[in-house]
Amino acid sequence: MADPLLIELQQLLDREIPICQAMGIQVHSIDENGLTMQMPLDINRNHQRTAFAGSLNALCTITGWGTMVLLARPKCPTGGIVIRRSSIRYLEPIESSSIRATCAPAPIDAVDYFLEMLCEKGQAKLELRTVIPGQKGPAVIFNGSYVVISPK
Amino acid sequence: MADPLLIELQQLLDREIPICQAMGIQVHSIDENGLTMQMPLDINRNHQRTAFAGSLNALCTITGWGTMVLLARPKCPTGGIVIRRSSIRYLEPIESSSIRATCAPAPIDAVDYFLEMLCEKGQAKLELRTVIPGQKGPAVIFNGSYVVISPK
Repeated sequence: MADPLLIELQQLLDREIPICQAMGIQVHSIDENGLTMQMPLDINRNHQRTAFAGSLNALCTITGWGTMVLLARPKCPTGGIVIRRSSIRYLEPIESSSIRATCAPAPIDAVDYFLEMLCEKGQAKLELRTVIPGQKGPAVIFNGSYVVISPK
Repeated sequence: MADPLLIELQQLLDREIPICQAMGIQVHSIDENGLTMQMPLDINRNHQRTAFAGSLNALCTITGWGTMVLLARPKCPTGGIVIRRSSIRYLEPIESSSIRATCAPAPIDAVDYFLEMLCEKGQAKLELRTVIPGQKGPAVIFNGSYVVISPK
């Protein structure tokens, strides 16, 4: 994670959302597949010694939020980015010691519309999908609706 | 929380799902409105000094899970209870220092069908709604689909 933007995002998480640090959530990388964050199984395990659903949801929520921070950064301070709703499917239990979630980039036309609305109206919404891979396919599929409100 | 069942549920959480302890999640009470759990804002705050969505989701997820533990207890050990999917709406930011979530009891006919399926098929599903109250109405509405699989 040598990218200064990702280092800054990690510092933001550590400073502003303490439970992410307790969960061991780390910004991992960004590439054409999207932003990836990871956390260890150990502190996030459940009664079955697989990953706790609440931790998986938090990891997906924050990976999407981080994606919004990077996207809206030139237009809006981080304070104005919130999640309004989400849905999640837990398709298989996760047993790997390190768990990674990747938030796919939104389609270009959706991003264009989002940035246009943010500039014109000072407020815009974007739907993002975050996936945690499993043994045979996705283990977790998360859809989140994020809203950005720029300061007046 | 003098009820021995609730004390046992708290011990189960503390022992089996360590991040719940890190979040300060406590079993609060049970009455005709359902099972209530709570957590402090402080460790669960976000960049806006309101409650982090990931923590709110975890609180709702585990309050529903606790409801399932109490419901399925006579039929099934806790190990077989998992969440399959959920959806959540964050309707207003939460600023109170202590945050409470209540999982409403499922309708009697749904519970009857659930217990019947669990006895007959060894597997059953139940939909539960958990709400975190806000200033003017619900601040968070969470719907979870939980599955119980009894041992063969």
